Formats: sequence, structure tokens, C-alpha cells
Amino acid sequence: MLLADEVLKGSRRALARLLTVIENGSQGADEAVAALFSHTGQAWMIGITGAPGTGKSSLVNTLAKAYREQAKTVAIIAVDPTSPFSGGAILGDRIRMRDLSGDKGVFIRSMATRGSLGGLARATRDAMRVLDAAGFNVILVETVGAGQSEVDIVRAAQTTIVVEAPGMGDDVQAIKAGILEIADILVVNKADRPGADNTVRGLRAMLELGHPAAKSHMISHHGQLIRLEKTTNPHENTFWIPPVIRTVATSEDTTVSGVQALIEAIADHRRYIAENGLNTELERQRIEIELYERLQSALMMRLQAEVTTSVLTDMIERIQARQIDPQHAVHLILETQKV
Amino acid sequence: MLLADEVLKGSRRALARLLTVIENGSQGADEAVAALFSHTGQAWMIGITGAPGTGKSSLVNTLAKAYREQAKTVAIIAVDPTSPFSGGAILGDRIRMRDLSGDKGVFIRSMATRGSLGGLARATRDAMRVLDAAGFNVILVETVGAGQSEVDIVRAAQTTIVVEAPGMGDDVQAIKAGILEIADILVVNKADRPGADNTVRGLRAMLELGHPAAKSHMISHHGQLIRLEKTTNPHENTFWIPPVIRTVATSEDTTVSGVQALIEAIADHRRYIAENGLNTELERQRIEIELYERLQSALMMRLQAEVTTSVLTDMIERIQARQIDPQHAVHLILETQKV
Repeated sequence: MLLADEVLKGSRRALARLLTVIENGSQGADEAVAALFSHTGQAWMIGITGAPGTGKSSLVNTLAKAYREQAKTVAIIAVDPTSPFSGGAILGDRIRMRDLSGDKGVFIRSMATRGSLGGLARATRDAMRVLDAAGFNVILVETVGAGQSEVDIVRAAQTTIVVEAPGMGDDVQAIKAGILEIADILVVNKADRPGADNTVRGLRAMLELGHPAAKSHMISHHGQLIRLEKTTNPHENTFWIPPVIRTVATSEDTTVSGVQALIEAIADHRRYIAENGLNTELERQRIEIELYERLQSALMMRLQAEVTTSVLTDMIERIQARQIDPQHAVHLILETQKV
Repeated sequence: MLLADEVLKGSRRALARLLTVIENGSQGADEAVAALFSHTGQAWMIGITGAPGTGKSSLVNTLAKAYREQAKTVAIIAVDPTSPFSGGAILGDRIRMRDLSGDKGVFIRSMATRGSLGGLARATRDAMRVLDAAGFNVILVETVGAGQSEVDIVRAAQTTIVVEAPGMGDDVQAIKAGILEIADILVVNKADRPGADNTVRGLRAMLELGHPAAKSHMISHHGQLIRLEKTTNPHENTFWIPPVIRTVATSEDTTVSGVQALIEAIADHRRYIAENGLNTELERQRIEIELYERLQSALMMRLQAEVTTSVLTDMIERIQARQIDPQHAVHLILETQKV
């Protein structure tokens, strides 16, 4: 509770400490987030994802600098869904520090997997809230890759940017189609390289292929918590067509271009959401997804507390002996729990 | 039940039909899998994963042909975790058909996302079982990418192959580290391209960095169902060091090389597991992970049946009004359910 108060008063040390508590899932994390919750809802959260090698981190750095020039405070969360063993997140931080260190209006934090990936999505969401309550104007959440866990993470943001780069192989197409559904803005980074025109054209073609209105019917891949008849969108005729922006922002390049266009696209998207009164509905959807995930993990914890290890071990042995099939075992375990 | 019997009698039409039932999660899927379950446990399952552009599909085709030359029957499951909208899996199938069609000893099937990704992992596992019961000697399960869902899918196999290719960008390193933990065999495909030596060297360096014994302590990213004091491995001093194999097997190439070495590495891995008596323990771990996932989805379904939509809607509204925080809402919902 004390930590939460210190965060509200602007202590950077308390902020860093609280984020560590959240990352590790240590005691006090839930209480602190609960205490800060009423102070959230002010920041604009931007999720940035894309395949390795697209130069996402450099783009995020450049974005942060551009927001600083607008006198906005910026927090960056770099999510590393790979093993702690890689040290990837730490390395990324060091490179960043060189560029943005010394600026009090920037806060940089990496989050790595501690245990489950579901736990990472949850910790990231809590970290975003804490940074929101701490008063940062813009929160940039960056994650590598296009897997479900990364999608879950960036989906907690208000504007989602998917970064591509020219010449990333032929069957990238398949990945793109999946990721297109979550993108509010598409960026072709390293746009000075050969093949950039092709990449832009390819993305535009895919956008045309998928009817843009499809985006408003987006539901969680995890299934819906509440079965709605139909998305009740009062502005069914308006839809957002994701723009494709070319940027050059890589660690090797000293010349940077396209970032102002990207900043404007983000502002456009924010304006689109506000003007169409979609903020409330989109937030509701995000909360629904979060509630689903939290319920899922709470139910598993309750099950593990109620069903004895010997029951589970016994079931696994019976499955292994081909006496019962796994789904039947599930029924038996849940019946045990009910009694 | 009838469908399951026909599958056991060798009907290809029944097999295809049952796989569709499983893919769609239609009625009868669980019953059929249960009926076939006692016939499983004979096939060797090989999971193949890797980033887009590494030429996985061509490698899988080449592997299938090599196993056919050994007079083994082969089933291929191509898992497409992207949206159905991409049509990626179907396209892949068509290319394959050209090569392997007309051979009765090969069965090819693609599986795409229907609804949730968790559902896809489950459907794939059931499909693997059905193909096992149908008598295929080798089952190749291929999936694109390195996200958690792909990892879950290949982890259901007995031998996991991770495919890399030269020159896939600089921060691929981070991804590799995560994927290395699940790889039994590493393949550098397109090994005739520039940079292949570097890729092989890089992979070997990472293997040395991570102590190989780490692999035996591998646990599910989703957390363990049963809290064990320590992995009780009777052969703690033996461990498998993943070999790095160079192959050339892409759709453009007519020359193919390294596939025999890969086939031998797979046989070595299978022998290693058998000679060290690890089969039972590894299968137990796979069943535990599966049971965890099935329990999770069963619990959510039960919750959705027991808690009314109005309770959930009310909670979401209260969260949105910042009256309660999400974790507190979870406590309240679970209390409702208990009464």
C-alpha cells in the first residue's frame, strides 16, 4: 500500500520496485494494483509487435523521442516472451539506455517470462496500469513475434502497430494474415531496403482482401466470456482502415524517416476512436478478455488446492495404461472436486 | 463409434471424416477418440517447427519420402495457427499433393484454427492419436512459428525438430534461445546459402551456453499440475545433446542433401529415449500437460454454465467505472459460483 502511495507521489524508485513485485508475482502485487486502479485510464497505450529482424526496438526508441519532443512523458515496456536464459530483454535495455538515458520524462522497463506465459501477459497488463497511474502520457509496449501470447499482450493496448520489413521470406504471408486482424496501423520499417514496395503492396492487397469491417467483429481467440448475439456497434457504417506507413528507423541508421507520419497515424486512430464513441466499447472488450484470463488462472489454482496430488497422479497412470482417455479423466477429476 | 471402427479397419474416408469432426469440435469427437485410445502408443511422433521462410514444409515432404523408402507408413499434419482467412494450410497441401499423391502409405492433413488456439492444440493432439490408432508408423506434425501455441503443439511429439535457415535477421537470437529448450534436433535448412556456417556456429554456441542437462528439467510453460519436489530422473547423468544437422530441402531445389543424416538423428534420439528408459517418464509429462489444458477448458465451460451473463456484465461495468479492480472481480465471481 505504501509502495502504491509512493508511486502516486512520483517516486521512480518505488515504481521500479513495484514493477519487480508484479513481474515476480510476489506478495503485495494485487493489493498495490488494486490501490492504484482508480487512478488509471489517462494514458494512451500503444502496442508494437512484429517478427524478429524488423527493427521494432529502434522504432520504439524513435517514437519515444518524438513524443518527448511533444513534451509528453513516455514509458516503454519491452516484453521478452523468450526464456530468461536468453537475456534478450536486458541486452535490449542497454542499447536503449544509451539513447534515452538522463531524460526524466522517459521510463524504460523490460519484462521477461517468470514461469508461465499467461503470467507474463497478466504482469504486463498490471505494469501498464501502474505506469498509467504513475502519470505517463504515452505507454509503449513492445513484444517480439506473432504468437498468441504476444497478440494477447499487444491487445491490451489502445492502438496496435504491426511492424514488417522487406524480404522476410515467402511464407510470411500466412503470419501476416493472422496479425492483420489485430493491427490498427501497419509499418514497413527498413523501407529504404530493396523489396519495400513489394511489402507495402502485399500488405495493402491483404487489407483489401479482408473486408475492413471485419475488425469490428474481432473477438478474443480465447473465446468469449459473455455470449453476445452480435457486436452492438452503434456506428456500424464507420470502420478504421489500417494505414500502411513506411519508416526507416534501425539501430544502424542515422537517418530516420517516416516517424512523423506514424505519430500522425496514431493520433488519427485515437481521434477515430473518440469521435465514434468507441472508447467505452473497446475498453469493455479488453476488460472482458482480461477477466476471462484471470478467471481461468484462479479456477486452476482453486482446483490444485482442492484436488489431491494422489488423485492426479493416479489419473495420469490410468491414462498412461490406456485404461481411460484424457477427456474421461477430466470428468472424473471434476466430479471429485464437486463432492 | 461406427466411425472409429471404420478407422480401425483402415478406411481412409472414415479417417478423413473423423479428423474433420475433431477439427470442428463437432459432436462425437470425444467418443471416437475415447474408443480409439486403447489402440494408441505405436507410432513415433515427430514435431517440426521453425520461423517462416526456413523451408519446413519441403523438409517435411522430403522426410516423408525418405520414410516411405524404408517402407514405413507416414501421416503428415500441417498445423496452421493463423486465421482461416489466410488459406495458408490449403495452399501448402496443394503443393504437397503434387509430390506425394498416389501413394497409399502417406496421409496428409492440414488443421487450421477454428475458434480458439487452445482448441487447435487439443484438436491436433486428438488427430495425432487417431492417426496413431489408424496404424501409421511415423506421424509428422508441422507448425509455423515459435509462439507458445506452436510450442504446445510440437511438444506433444516424441522428437521435436527446430528448423532454422541462414540469414534470418539479427534478433532471431532471442527467439532461438526460447526454442532451443524444446529442440531435440536442430536443422539448418537451406544450408547451401551464404551464412550457413554462421548459423550452425551460432546454434552450437547457444547449445554450449545453456547446460544441456537443463533439458531434463523442462517443465510446462503453463505451470505444473502436480508440484514435484524435483524431476525424478533415474538417469541423471545421461543427457541428450541436440545435434545440429545441415539440410538442403526447399521447394526450388532439385538437389536434396542431409536428409539421411536427419533420419539417423531421429533414430538416435528414439534409441536414446528407449535405452535410458525415458519413454514412460516423457509420456507422463506429456499427459500431465494435456490434462492441465483439458481441465482448464472444462473449468471455464463449467463456470460459463453456472455464472449468469448479467453477473459478468455487471462486473465488467463496475471495473470500467473503476469501482473494483479486475482481480477483486474474479474473487466476487468465484464466490457467486460456489453458493
